[in-house]
Amino acid sequence: MLTNNETKLINSLVKKKFRQKYNNFIVEGVKIIDEALKSPLKIHKVYSIDHVFGEKNAFVELISERELKKISQLVQPNTALALCEIPDEKPIQTEGLILVLDDIRDPGNLGTIIRLADWFGIEQIVCSTETVDVYNPKVIQSTMGSFLRVQINYTDLPTFFDQYKYPVLGTFMEGKNIYQSQFPENAALVLGNEANGISDELVPYISEKISIPRLGNLQQTESLNVAMATGIILGEIASHHFKLNS
Amino acid sequence: MLTNNETKLINSLVKKKFRQKYNNFIVEGVKIIDEALKSPLKIHKVYSIDHVFGEKNAFVELISERELKKISQLVQPNTALALCEIPDEKPIQTEGLILVLDDIRDPGNLGTIIRLADWFGIEQIVCSTETVDVYNPKVIQSTMGSFLRVQINYTDLPTFFDQYKYPVLGTFMEGKNIYQSQFPENAALVLGNEANGISDELVPYISEKISIPRLGNLQQTESLNVAMATGIILGEIASHHFKLNS
Repeated sequence: MLTNNETKLINSLVKKKFRQKYNNFIVEGVKIIDEALKSPLKIHKVYSIDHVFGEKNAFVELISERELKKISQLVQPNTALALCEIPDEKPIQTEGLILVLDDIRDPGNLGTIIRLADWFGIEQIVCSTETVDVYNPKVIQSTMGSFLRVQINYTDLPTFFDQYKYPVLGTFMEGKNIYQSQFPENAALVLGNEANGISDELVPYISEKISIPRLGNLQQTESLNVAMATGIILGEIASHHFKLNS
Repeated sequence: MLTNNETKLINSLVKKKFRQKYNNFIVEGVKIIDEALKSPLKIHKVYSIDHVFGEKNAFVELISERELKKISQLVQPNTALALCEIPDEKPIQTEGLILVLDDIRDPGNLGTIIRLADWFGIEQIVCSTETVDVYNPKVIQSTMGSFLRVQINYTDLPTFFDQYKYPVLGTFMEGKNIYQSQFPENAALVLGNEANGISDELVPYISEKISIPRLGNLQQTESLNVAMATGIILGEIASHHFKLNS
């Protein structure tokens, strides 16, 4: 049984203000919850319409489909929803390749970028304070569980870069062709806002301007979506890894 | 002024059945319509809330914002909508790299793949008859105009492959690392359905199984989204082009 207070609390978590107030967020779907249960994430309660989580450690509450519908943020609710605690912030690790997100606003783009980081073994993402919140339910769902394996940090980016000691790569129309570039092992790859690209205040920190060359229809000006650009650049960086090791 | 018949016709075009019956589809947004007007596409009428298309050739009808809302398929309507004729089918050109889509169902995925083809200079996409219709309004919008520059064909894929004479690449979990593969100049890259991958009936036609290697968290089984995988593979193929020419 779901109490009115629980319903109210869970529905409030769609807003960042309430996620911060209660320090909670939600995860939906058996597959992601299953991964979350095996991770260090603290789970307060799993609301499930069946017994699939019966033997697990977390406190499981059986609810009806009608009740799940009341708390789910999905158009087509799965069969379970977990109420989780937002983990404490951890220090940013700057070794290796890191991603820096300069005001990514679209939840789907952030989710996709987190999934890509997980795929390509990138452990740290540093987000501007204006970047969409990772605990937004739409972001969490679109990561497909990758948020459990990539550390997402929010901080003031100029302050961060003042301390950062490795090369900083950023995508610009006039940047150097990525297929003719070298990628240092320790570096930050900055990805700009969907509409405005990399902000003026970050430009002075960029040490290498790069770009994905267009092969077709060179008169066109429409650029690639930021998540797609991230995938293609990370793919190219990965290729160096394999070519070095083959 | 928008007549009731026009409103009814335009709204019916959200369904494939009616697009086929009337041989019409819609394009929304000043930027795409502007590109469409410069292309060979036949445009029956442009409905616009302002005079931006005033000097152009197409027949422009000024309508109110309220009227546009009645015919727009967008959550936030732009300022113009064009009623266009579905072009006649053209013969498939099989030279060069072509994409083959085996039951891609998500309109956003098809739109993104068309945009990628346009970016990387791929001129032909061959879709299974079960692939989502390119003239679906969601596909057209997500191509950002790229549907004007890439030829999208629908056909029975086994019949197509029976005639096709170049190597056929397909993505499989156990495929060869794309970063250690060669890509012939003339080839088909097959992309499988979102849930089921490449269908059993096409497997016999695949001459090269390829895969994007995972660098992080190797125990994970979640694969990349099909549009993202397409972007990463096309990026890798593009890199050969630049490395050969540098």
